[in-house]
Amino acid sequence: MKRIYLDHAASSPLSKAALEKMLPYLTENYGNPSAIHAFGREARRGVEEARGTIADVIGAHPDEIYFTSGGSESDSWAVMEGSRAKDRRMHVITSAVEHKAVLNSCRALEKQGFRVTYLAPDADGVIPANAVRDAIGENTGLVSVMTANNEIGTLQPIEEIGEICAERNVLFHTDAVQALGALPIRVEKMGVHLLSASAHKFHGPKGVGFLYIRRGVKLQSRIFGGQQEHGRRAGTENAAGIVGMAAALREAEDRREQNCAHMRFVRDAMLCFVMREIPGAHLNGSFTKRLPGNLNLRFDGIDAQALIMRLDMAGIAASAGSACMAGAVEVSHVLRAVGLDGDAAASSVRLTLSADTTLEEGLEAVRVLKENVFSMRLLCPSP
Amino acid sequence: MKRIYLDHAASSPLSKAALEKMLPYLTENYGNPSAIHAFGREARRGVEEARGTIADVIGAHPDEIYFTSGGSESDSWAVMEGSRAKDRRMHVITSAVEHKAVLNSCRALEKQGFRVTYLAPDADGVIPANAVRDAIGENTGLVSVMTANNEIGTLQPIEEIGEICAERNVLFHTDAVQALGALPIRVEKMGVHLLSASAHKFHGPKGVGFLYIRRGVKLQSRIFGGQQEHGRRAGTENAAGIVGMAAALREAEDRREQNCAHMRFVRDAMLCFVMREIPGAHLNGSFTKRLPGNLNLRFDGIDAQALIMRLDMAGIAASAGSACMAGAVEVSHVLRAVGLDGDAAASSVRLTLSADTTLEEGLEAVRVLKENVFSMRLLCPSP
Repeated sequence: MKRIYLDHAASSPLSKAALEKMLPYLTENYGNPSAIHAFGREARRGVEEARGTIADVIGAHPDEIYFTSGGSESDSWAVMEGSRAKDRRMHVITSAVEHKAVLNSCRALEKQGFRVTYLAPDADGVIPANAVRDAIGENTGLVSVMTANNEIGTLQPIEEIGEICAERNVLFHTDAVQALGALPIRVEKMGVHLLSASAHKFHGPKGVGFLYIRRGVKLQSRIFGGQQEHGRRAGTENAAGIVGMAAALREAEDRREQNCAHMRFVRDAMLCFVMREIPGAHLNGSFTKRLPGNLNLRFDGIDAQALIMRLDMAGIAASAGSACMAGAVEVSHVLRAVGLDGDAAASSVRLTLSADTTLEEGLEAVRVLKENVFSMRLLCPSP
Repeated sequence: MKRIYLDHAASSPLSKAALEKMLPYLTENYGNPSAIHAFGREARRGVEEARGTIADVIGAHPDEIYFTSGGSESDSWAVMEGSRAKDRRMHVITSAVEHKAVLNSCRALEKQGFRVTYLAPDADGVIPANAVRDAIGENTGLVSVMTANNEIGTLQPIEEIGEICAERNVLFHTDAVQALGALPIRVEKMGVHLLSASAHKFHGPKGVGFLYIRRGVKLQSRIFGGQQEHGRRAGTENAAGIVGMAAALREAEDRREQNCAHMRFVRDAMLCFVMREIPGAHLNGSFTKRLPGNLNLRFDGIDAQALIMRLDMAGIAASAGSACMAGAVEVSHVLRAVGLDGDAAASSVRLTLSADTTLEEGLEAVRVLKENVFSMRLLCPSP
């Protein structure tokens, strides 16, 4: 059975270029990057070249790139400590459609006495910049709004929010985990002080990511130990992971425009097919302000979990909501936030593409999707 | 130039068996372990098999193994949150010879109002179990004492300390980062509630480790997000790293006795040579209670940093203190704690072996060491 992978937002295959860069660091270059001998210096060179590459791609200085174990660590660090970076301001603003790494960090802050405002999105999932402006008070220390949503792919008005935060002297964090490789990411233009990234979302390895911390931002550590990462994030650097992440990001950035055009083309063909061929199908999220590889579809009367299992049996990998919630059978907080009721949210399926997804694969997937939606409706007609 | 690597305590080469296990997870098995489709389930299987292997090696239940990004994260988690696991007890006991991941976590706790007792070691670096007993008070919530020291290799009386902690109903954490693969690690016998490990110290990959958390211990999260690791440690699992870590640990454990006998043999031959051939040479740490691959030597009147650079030029990788401190030119807190003055501490060199270090390599290294100590003394005779 030919398998079709349409869950790239959950995790993407490692690029060949990234693996090639990694292999020497998994074999002969085994020194600890903090060691001063030749073995250590070789590893250090790889780590620092990677830092330079990443800084270049996002328009930062190398000393603003801090390596972490991935998006959740970066988000937790940014929110838990970013909220404390402006002394004694105990108010944080975020949105109701953030990744759980941000939302659950905010819950933890609330237990510690912080007040958190969860801004509601519009029906497309967009957080209006004005809502951020209105929510900022004297006591606001941090705003955290994602660049692009992981479930419905909605793009946020980051630059506008950045300007507002600058005017009001509030720290601005964005979770750009889904955005890197898909959108032009320039930290100055975006006006962000903190930006989270995860390598495996852009064809890098799992278990590595970074946090951009703008120069001058006082962010306390959460992982203590040696003097790695300017003393801010301890732990022997994951040299192989780091060089792999940089190679993947460089490649994704260099091919970004053609990759995105291709994904948009395949995705829109899939969407056209679905809208024409499947009655009671709806697109969740925005038509225009959307990640190029994201399709989030709702089918009236369909149990998305059951549909996904049927797709899986046919060799097609899709998801309901985000992978991080797969363990917990929980209705998507994002879909609820954009106004869907529990049933509608529970009948939504996410298909996420990569630049390697062919038109044939995309159309085959929606053809199988149609078959299954039809047969599910025949078996269990909704009331 | 043939190079001789004697800095295994800083980082060890990835074992071939581990790399082989990892490669499928860096290529075709790219699913997110939390995804419910076939790609996800394949990754999940690898992660859970690895968890079972690790649990088996240390005598734990699989649900007591929590994957992290390495030793520093595990230590920070154990200390920062373990200190809060026993409600309102604001006293922590640790030792003056712990890794900085534990010590700097303790410093952070002090800033939050905790009281921390730093127990002094004896001249060999041993923390007497009685000192722990005497230090425990009504208000003590956590004891953190490492299994084996990373600089001088001293083994601690973990079982005795474990018994004392059990009697007094105090949580006991041990940093076993240097001990796994070198000592028999059985969590029940040791009486520990929390145990930290790092894969790259036992021929696993960098950027992955684990924290053993005994069933029933209430440890809050520090990395928030999805429901991974029973909701205690969010973030997409580093599947490749995790399976590599398990393979390396299994291999290290299966060969532990012969590996240790070999390391002890080579190390003792090196030590004999040094003691016989180099005047003014001393062993730091204990003769008997010591990791088999650890040699920490002091040479009167020698600047260890300069000696290490000379060794490096001769192709020999050694270190002064731990790699994590290499960035900061700082005198070892461990050597100071065992009673050395600044000059003596600054004339100490650490050589750490693996099972692959041959007798020839070991003896060649100490021969070059001798040459350099002699020529340094000729060039700059001490007053």
